Amino acid sequence: MDYRIEKDMLGVKSINDEKYYGINTIRAMENFNIGDKFVNIDFVKEIALIKKAAAMVNIKLKKLDEEKGKAIIKAAEEVVSGLFDENFHINAFQGGAGTSTNMNVNEVIANRALELLGRKKGEYDIIHPNNHVNMSQSTNDVCPTALRIAAIRKIRKLADALASLQEAFQIKEDEFANILKLGRTELMDALPMMAGQGFGAYAKAIERDRWRIYKVEERLRVINIGGTAIGTGLNATNKYIFMITDLLQDLTGIGLARSDFPMDITQNADVFVEVSGLLKSCAVNLMKISNDLRLLGSGPRGGFGEILLPMEQAGSSIMPGKVNPVIPEMVAQVAMRIISNDSGITFAAASGQLELNAFIPIITENLLESLELLERTIIIFREKCIEGIEVNKDKCKENLEKSTAMTAALINHIGYDKASEVAKRSLASGKTLREILICEKILSEEEINKILNPLELTKPGIPGK
Amino acid sequence: MDYRIEKDMLGVKSINDEKYYGINTIRAMENFNIGDKFVNIDFVKEIALIKKAAAMVNIKLKKLDEEKGKAIIKAAEEVVSGLFDENFHINAFQGGAGTSTNMNVNEVIANRALELLGRKKGEYDIIHPNNHVNMSQSTNDVCPTALRIAAIRKIRKLADALASLQEAFQIKEDEFANILKLGRTELMDALPMMAGQGFGAYAKAIERDRWRIYKVEERLRVINIGGTAIGTGLNATNKYIFMITDLLQDLTGIGLARSDFPMDITQNADVFVEVSGLLKSCAVNLMKISNDLRLLGSGPRGGFGEILLPMEQAGSSIMPGKVNPVIPEMVAQVAMRIISNDSGITFAAASGQLELNAFIPIITENLLESLELLERTIIIFREKCIEGIEVNKDKCKENLEKSTAMTAALINHIGYDKASEVAKRSLASGKTLREILICEKILSEEEINKILNPLELTKPGIPGK
Amino acid sequence: MDYRIEKDMLGVKSINDEKYYGINTIRAMENFNIGDKFVNIDFVKEIALIKKAAAMVNIKLKKLDEEKGKAIIKAAEEVVSGLFDENFHINAFQGGAGTSTNMNVNEVIANRALELLGRKKGEYDIIHPNNHVNMSQSTNDVCPTALRIAAIRKIRKLADALASLQEAFQIKEDEFANILKLGRTELMDALPMMAGQGFGAYAKAIERDRWRIYKVEERLRVINIGGTAIGTGLNATNKYIFMITDLLQDLTGIGLARSDFPMDITQNADVFVEVSGLLKSCAVNLMKISNDLRLLGSGPRGGFGEILLPMEQAGSSIMPGKVNPVIPEMVAQVAMRIISNDSGITFAAASGQLELNAFIPIITENLLESLELLERTIIIFREKCIEGIEVNKDKCKENLEKSTAMTAALINHIGYDKASEVAKRSLASGKTLREILICEKILSEEEINKILNPLELTKPGIPGK
Amino acid sequence: MDYRIEKDMLGVKSINDEKYYGINTIRAMENFNIGDKFVNIDFVKEIALIKKAAAMVNIKLKKLDEEKGKAIIKAAEEVVSGLFDENFHINAFQGGAGTSTNMNVNEVIANRALELLGRKKGEYDIIHPNNHVNMSQSTNDVCPTALRIAAIRKIRKLADALASLQEAFQIKEDEFANILKLGRTELMDALPMMAGQGFGAYAKAIERDRWRIYKVEERLRVINIGGTAIGTGLNATNKYIFMITDLLQDLTGIGLARSDFPMDITQNADVFVEVSGLLKSCAVNLMKISNDLRLLGSGPRGGFGEILLPMEQAGSSIMPGKVNPVIPEMVAQVAMRIISNDSGITFAAASGQLELNAFIPIITENLLESLELLERTIIIFREKCIEGIEVNKDKCKENLEKSTAMTAALINHIGYDKASEVAKRSLASGKTLREILICEKILSEEEINKILNPLELTKPGIPGK
Repeated sequence: MDYRIEKDMLGVKSINDEKYYGINTIRAMENFNIGDKFVNIDFVKEIALIKKAAAMVNIKLKKLDEEKGKAIIKAAEEVVSGLFDENFHINAFQGGAGTSTNMNVNEVIANRALELLGRKKGEYDIIHPNNHVNMSQSTNDVCPTALRIAAIRKIRKLADALASLQEAFQIKEDEFANILKLGRTELMDALPMMAGQGFGAYAKAIERDRWRIYKVEERLRVINIGGTAIGTGLNATNKYIFMITDLLQDLTGIGLARSDFPMDITQNADVFVEVSGLLKSCAVNLMKISNDLRLLGSGPRGGFGEILLPMEQAGSSIMPGKVNPVIPEMVAQVAMRIISNDSGITFAAASGQLELNAFIPIITENLLESLELLERTIIIFREKCIEGIEVNKDKCKENLEKSTAMTAALINHIGYDKASEVAKRSLASGKTLREILICEKILSEEEINKILNPLELTKPGIPGK
Repeated sequence: MDYRIEKDMLGVKSINDEKYYGINTIRAMENFNIGDKFVNIDFVKEIALIKKAAAMVNIKLKKLDEEKGKAIIKAAEEVVSGLFDENFHINAFQGGAGTSTNMNVNEVIANRALELLGRKKGEYDIIHPNNHVNMSQSTNDVCPTALRIAAIRKIRKLADALASLQEAFQIKEDEFANILKLGRTELMDALPMMAGQGFGAYAKAIERDRWRIYKVEERLRVINIGGTAIGTGLNATNKYIFMITDLLQDLTGIGLARSDFPMDITQNADVFVEVSGLLKSCAVNLMKISNDLRLLGSGPRGGFGEILLPMEQAGSSIMPGKVNPVIPEMVAQVAMRIISNDSGITFAAASGQLELNAFIPIITENLLESLELLERTIIIFREKCIEGIEVNKDKCKENLEKSTAMTAALINHIGYDKASEVAKRSLASGKTLREILICEKILSEEEINKILNPLELTKPGIPGK
Repeated sequence: MDYRIEKDMLGVKSINDEKYYGINTIRAMENFNIGDKFVNIDFVKEIALIKKAAAMVNIKLKKLDEEKGKAIIKAAEEVVSGLFDENFHINAFQGGAGTSTNMNVNEVIANRALELLGRKKGEYDIIHPNNHVNMSQSTNDVCPTALRIAAIRKIRKLADALASLQEAFQIKEDEFANILKLGRTELMDALPMMAGQGFGAYAKAIERDRWRIYKVEERLRVINIGGTAIGTGLNATNKYIFMITDLLQDLTGIGLARSDFPMDITQNADVFVEVSGLLKSCAVNLMKISNDLRLLGSGPRGGFGEILLPMEQAGSSIMPGKVNPVIPEMVAQVAMRIISNDSGITFAAASGQLELNAFIPIITENLLESLELLERTIIIFREKCIEGIEVNKDKCKENLEKSTAMTAALINHIGYDKASEVAKRSLASGKTLREILICEKILSEEEINKILNPLELTKPGIPGK
Repeated sequence: MDYRIEKDMLGVKSINDEKYYGINTIRAMENFNIGDKFVNIDFVKEIALIKKAAAMVNIKLKKLDEEKGKAIIKAAEEVVSGLFDENFHINAFQGGAGTSTNMNVNEVIANRALELLGRKKGEYDIIHPNNHVNMSQSTNDVCPTALRIAAIRKIRKLADALASLQEAFQIKEDEFANILKLGRTELMDALPMMAGQGFGAYAKAIERDRWRIYKVEERLRVINIGGTAIGTGLNATNKYIFMITDLLQDLTGIGLARSDFPMDITQNADVFVEVSGLLKSCAVNLMKISNDLRLLGSGPRGGFGEILLPMEQAGSSIMPGKVNPVIPEMVAQVAMRIISNDSGITFAAASGQLELNAFIPIITENLLESLELLERTIIIFREKCIEGIEVNKDKCKENLEKSTAMTAALINHIGYDKASEVAKRSLASGKTLREILICEKILSEEEINKILNPLELTKPGIPGK
């Protein structure tokens, strides 16, 4: 294996010459060698995209030699295309506010650009990671900008996944629109409802999630590129700032906007807490829905048993024939993960100090993971669970009929206290409401038929009046 | 003391006849007797307001006798005015999804209305808590609606407090616009900046909070009143639903809107997670700012010492003359509280089951507490801290001058590697950058003067070019 | 109303002369006027106890005049007895690391002691809050010590409550030892078990909680009294330190021990995170158990319906006769509160800086609230829920019999794959396992009787072998 | 590529015949295909170890044919040795309570055992994943047992890492024992102390962590192996249970103990909350210490600048020469991660239902990640940061001397109020305490020399008395 020697202010390192990264990357891989969770690769690629944009602008502004600049652009495009993924193995929980990741990209692009120019890796006097690839930039404007772009792209995919999930629930709402079942509050028998109505409520919740996720994109569009180290814009001209913002709009197809106060964006991470908080709202809905599905499908014989989830795999190594609600269980755990990730993002965002938040790496990791996990989980949730749900009509009917779920309809006819007594007696005796009402001559059979009409009870209005 | 006897499905209780609450309230006070944190009184008052509205509508619809209805309206108004606060002492962490609080209001209003009619408390055959005061309602539509109204009122106050805080920061931004100081990233000397810019960044963060809080109101305006127990609307006619929604708009001055799917609002609590998540974003900003202020004011001799916070109280029982940053410390703790409350809201909202979330009481308590705490804390933060902040210009100057904060400006002139060496030597030797640059003839004095101009370094551009 | 004037380094304040607190308290009430959650009164009383102890030691050491000292002791005792509770109304989320609370106690004791000596309040040249009442002390050794003492007392009560709860579960374990029922994993029908076994599992979980809580006391016994401001012990002699530690042991009956490195205890709050983490373990068990009880009692007709919780109150303002599991719901919410409080404690403890943790007030509030809430909730949980639980034998039997819960017993006889098929066919057809086994001649009736014996299936062993 | 066909109750799948896993694994990889975080491989290996133990016992008990059993044992050993790591790619957040992972291990071992016997993969009539490899076991006893073993092994390594860290702090305590510096409370100048004392306090905190971690092992030693599906022990004889527990003790070298109530261990996950809570205490200490180090090393010119952290890498792509405290920043982020992981564990543990906790997979992932991350981070923290810390004596001296940190020593000589005035005047005027005391003839020079002796002020006692 060939080695080359690189040098920085702290000394020298020998590097496997097949690798495109340089001494700063090596040091970071050693310093943060605490596990195998590496920086999110999509984030790395957005950084590379920014490098490309910066080179394009700097060529136009005559700050960067055209030949070198074009090599940088080509190299950056290759990073974006995934050719050098194996060169980005710095831990996600790195110190340094992302400097190591930015330098990693700078080094890989510089060395690949040198190669494209027929040079050897490491000839940094020709193309220097910081002087040329990082020209007019700082970690502190590049990383927050890249994170916003990466997040927006994932948000759009998530919004699509939510839209499909909402639709799937609506299809079920229609499908089960005419199946009467028992509604429950606090897990206790409450009132009759239609099985479809339950799915309609899920659809509405997911509709809110979709809308929230869709809307939050605009909060992320404000970028601080050009603010450089602390947001004041040192080493970046106003011309550059305008041009690179426009260019990034073109390259990404996202309506990015220059911050009018980049120092704010450089030091404040509240917008990531906002986004993560909305993901948490979505997680909460997913957990509620997945728990409901597990409950409604419980048994199937010794539980609620009102719905049948599609069977996806054998459920037990010891209990043959058992099938578990594995997809809702996965969904619930992903929801817990989103909630945990939010806790990390909150802590990190609150720990910013003065002109920078040093903990942007964990924010980056957690936010992008949450977005990815949610999208993929929601797709599987829809495909492997929701779309295949069936309702067990007989069980729905049985559960409704044996309950006292229609007592509330009596309140306008015999008053709360009397109705309470009837219900209590029904539960104690095992007799139905109807039986007791007739037997004790509280209401006539005709009246009862009007009042205790389950179908009427699923809509606004006062049954029997 | 006089006692009266009340009866429910479980038996009888004797009640101090001075009290307006009845047997359901008594049972709830006993069942949930775990501490002295009672249900938020503003929430109770919004419930009473809904009782008033329901009575007005039911009188119009001829469902409620006018004389009784007017007594109910008057009694409800008295509850809103605070006359009966001492009658609402059920614990905030009650079971039953708010039923006990709703019944408490029903009972107090019923008994007060009876009194207004010249009757005795407990004559429920005349005015019954459930049959008359609760007519056309259920806990499960009343409580979520009252929570939304209470939250919106508090949100408006919070938005105002945030607006004033933003303004206070902007005044400081102007006041300190021309004071040069050292900017720091990761707590290490970074680049020059203006003291005012720092406050400008705080103003921008708070501006986002204000906007978020202001916008979220609309998410809370959708109410499920009329949905009754599970959102299907049993015992509430469509006419009633439209009329009470309109009336609540008038009575509150808030643009409330009827949900087109009340079953959703009855069972899903994600919107409270959304609101709480935004409060958390605000808390994160407040914590970051308050920590910055403590850091910048640290010392005052043996720390950063760049700002002076107003002195509000003696700081030590043993160290005379010591003054602590007590207001920022309070702010940080309130921020922690908001974050904790959010964790409780998240857990509770995720724990909804089927047609109801049984844990709405803890959501109510946490959300309203967060809103109240934030508003009051922000006002004190502004009045007792921000508005009185002064900058120690001499210390700012001293810290800037002894640092190597202008090295970055050299990068376009002598390159990153050379500049690194110069910086390293400066830190090791104690010599200034200027001294080393001249001494080693790296740049001429004229060049240096152009490049190392701190004022230029606080704006976009390439100093010396 | 009479007023007196008090003075501090920041100016003067007039104080209602009926009040025992002084200018520092007034300022703190104003500075932290963000709500009505005041400092935990039991914590205040432990501070007063320390004041008494310090005075006793300082009299013996001839540092404090005996007459004054005795007045201080008497006044402190009165604070402990609760006579002056209304004089402690500083907000719990105060800045200043507890200084305001310590000064509040100093002032109340000083003024009461002056009164006992026939002097007027405010004659601090005679008895001074800081010079005399606070002699040899600092907030930073007094507050952590008081918090530890308060916590230990509450821990002991909590351990007792847990012991009784464990016992209540064991009684139910015995009571239901012979009732066969269906066991479920992932909410799906799994294996037969005895109803008592479920309660036995709860008892074991609570036994662990009890043991943990009991053991953690020893972690809190190490106190830093005498460390004064930063733990170095300035203004406290070694003699004083030994004597006051011994005395506090006597006064409290707790085996308190002097830290061998008080600077550690003064700045590090990890032990409160440890305690709170154990309370969280307890909360997790309580939530799991309370959710189980709600699930097992769900319906009662349209749910699992296997147990009956005692009825504690009417459950609905609109659904007469409905009774909800309000006690388990309260328990679950308290568990959420404990978990939230832990989040606040963690954040605060992690935010300590250098020689002190400024956020000890929120740690104090949260930890003591968690301890109090848990104890009271556990007592109510036992008295109003656990002790009255009944099992619905018929429903248990019905649920078990209609399930395929005995399939696992077939694995040793016909293999996993064959057993899977049988189970699948049973569920699809509605036939029982037995019917299919016989009908398809897979096993003989005799074999089946040996293998599918539910009683055998609730114990270790291979049924039929 | 060759394919084989496998079949389960849901249908058939074709499998790349190079793979050792079977149809259940394939389904799980598809069902949980939400990312690339796979089940912790060390956990997988402990499961394999249990398979080996079960086979050994079942051979002895004559339940398993010796030839087949030996092949299973050999195959299990190969999995433990890491030969088949690539065959375990099911997502960590899987549904099914670990069934998929257990089946994955069963399948890989079965197929490898078949191969060892000269058979083809998939010939399950010879060696069946469930009938033979899983004999006498269930996911629900295997997974909790494997998790406990994996956790204990990692706990031991963590305890070692903590011991070394404690020692490193103690070495620094000694090294800096005689360097006077300023102590700060609430970031404000407080009292003099020795630089070494600060490191002593860190050592004490880490000592507690070490002790906690060390002690908690015993809580994890109780295992439920033999409890099978719900803890009742169906399909596992008492003989088997005793023998496998003993054997696992031998194989692991850990003092494992059979639970006397396995149903408890099967359904309750509180012990993982307990362990995670202790890891959180450790995280809190690490965050506090790492924040202190960043603060004390801030600047280096424009901050506290009292310590020098070892330089590990260049700190900025734009600010040459800047070096950041990257190791403490990594440590803080890992601490945030531990705290987040704890939040996930808590949620999951609280979500157990009836006879099982379905969310053990996320508990497994989070707990083992926390243990691994902490250990590796602590080692790097020590090696790359703590051991190389130096103190800047001059800066320490300067900061101490310009402060009013010795005012507290005056309280016993001139009283609190007078001392306050002196301090206030000193801060306002820029004069030292000494100058004011002499100038205003408050104390004689001789007295002052005795009282304001910084060395005396770092120990218990009353200076000047």
